[in-house]
Amino acid sequence: MSRPIRVGAVNYLNARPLIEDLESLAPEIQLSLEVPSKLADQLAVAEIDVGLIPVIEYFRAGSYSVVPEVAIASRGAVLSVTLFSRKPWPRITSVALDEGSRTSATLARILLHKRYGVRPEYVSLPLNQPAEEVSTDAVLLIGDRAMHACLPGFTYAYDLGQEWQDWTSLPFVYAFWAVRQGVDLNGVEDAFRQAKDRGLEHVGAIAQRESARLGLDAGFCRRYLNHIIQYDLGPREQAGLHHFYALACELGLARRGVSIEYYRANALVESR
Amino acid sequence: MSRPIRVGAVNYLNARPLIEDLESLAPEIQLSLEVPSKLADQLAVAEIDVGLIPVIEYFRAGSYSVVPEVAIASRGAVLSVTLFSRKPWPRITSVALDEGSRTSATLARILLHKRYGVRPEYVSLPLNQPAEEVSTDAVLLIGDRAMHACLPGFTYAYDLGQEWQDWTSLPFVYAFWAVRQGVDLNGVEDAFRQAKDRGLEHVGAIAQRESARLGLDAGFCRRYLNHIIQYDLGPREQAGLHHFYALACELGLARRGVSIEYYRANALVESR
Repeated sequence: MSRPIRVGAVNYLNARPLIEDLESLAPEIQLSLEVPSKLADQLAVAEIDVGLIPVIEYFRAGSYSVVPEVAIASRGAVLSVTLFSRKPWPRITSVALDEGSRTSATLARILLHKRYGVRPEYVSLPLNQPAEEVSTDAVLLIGDRAMHACLPGFTYAYDLGQEWQDWTSLPFVYAFWAVRQGVDLNGVEDAFRQAKDRGLEHVGAIAQRESARLGLDAGFCRRYLNHIIQYDLGPREQAGLHHFYALACELGLARRGVSIEYYRANALVESR
Repeated sequence: MSRPIRVGAVNYLNARPLIEDLESLAPEIQLSLEVPSKLADQLAVAEIDVGLIPVIEYFRAGSYSVVPEVAIASRGAVLSVTLFSRKPWPRITSVALDEGSRTSATLARILLHKRYGVRPEYVSLPLNQPAEEVSTDAVLLIGDRAMHACLPGFTYAYDLGQEWQDWTSLPFVYAFWAVRQGVDLNGVEDAFRQAKDRGLEHVGAIAQRESARLGLDAGFCRRYLNHIIQYDLGPREQAGLHHFYALACELGLARRGVSIEYYRANALVESR
């Protein structure tokens, strides 16, 4: 088969260990990098075959399958999804949501409504607007942009991974590899797990290189990749994912009736 | 009473929220800053009355009491106590230990011996020697020095807070306020807890100011202080502390028969 398998990933630091060796492990793969929201659109219109998409997009599409054993998740604090707030949770009346965020924005809404019983007004924070300037009570920042942010003017800085874990005792899954319906990975599905294993062996070198690009401390980047981000998609991560989906449905933020289907080569062959 | 209460704290980033407002809350307090090991010596020879000492020094001294409700602890990854290693745990045969470390060095020994069944050779890493140059299999770095370190030449970077939590399901307590026997805090004991509460309200400003001094990213510093370091000394932290002490005794790294006594003003008055 000569057609390459088009794979899209986010250009965030936390995705680096998953893609570092991907193309060398599977030369059939053609890798491109995009912002999370655009990536989901590309998968939807078949511009790519596999995408490292925010999990909420999986539940909204309802037609993808998931590459097993690989995720971007956290067990506790995630450090890169932070709700900066001038007021404690129960008194928040307005929130600006990072334009780049979809899953984390849903998580913030779930925590506000379901955990703290508040229904604030939401506005969008454009990617190029400095968070310090917002007039809302709180502002949600995600990804590499969030990691830089200190925002001393905001008394509270809530880590949504920690909040989720404190509330549910479960890990939170932010993204995974989703495969478009009908795509045959033709055996390269194993490369995604292998790439994760190999990438994690080279986290020190990845951290040193990427920190320079991002203007972050190399030591911080290594700790973030080594100890904060979890790359497995085991039973507890799956439980966290199901619980998140159920809550998103309750708030009308995901379509109901979507199940998590794992990509299986055999299933495709049998259905031909 | 005119004599000031001499209080010594470490000059680490993680201690900042505990001391930020201490002297303004209790003008009777005279605060000085030192490296952790020197601080313990000062308390031992009565150069200070209260010290934010490594917990192992409490168990070695055996004559102090502990200020309630305040600690420097972690529940999971701590980010500032890292064993960089060229080999996985079970194959480590030599370890260089950060000269500034006492409690974390004991924790590393406990994990190596008790969790992984290895008894490596230990050498000391002087504070001014670059960790990259060590020829040992592994090197333990702690504190602000550890946070900068990326060390891509070391394949493994083990977070000892995470390792402890994975093994015991308990938090780990690194330091607390220890009071020298016979010292009367004369009512200012409450200031330590109040200072913690106030300091945590100003973590954003502390992170911004201290990051410049340390050459670390302000966003990282805020996340470290807000989400990684835990400042409470609750029942679970106390359980972690007792378990650590029992293991240190088994390895002959602490003297037996020391109990954790909390400072009580009444107890002092009664014993007069």
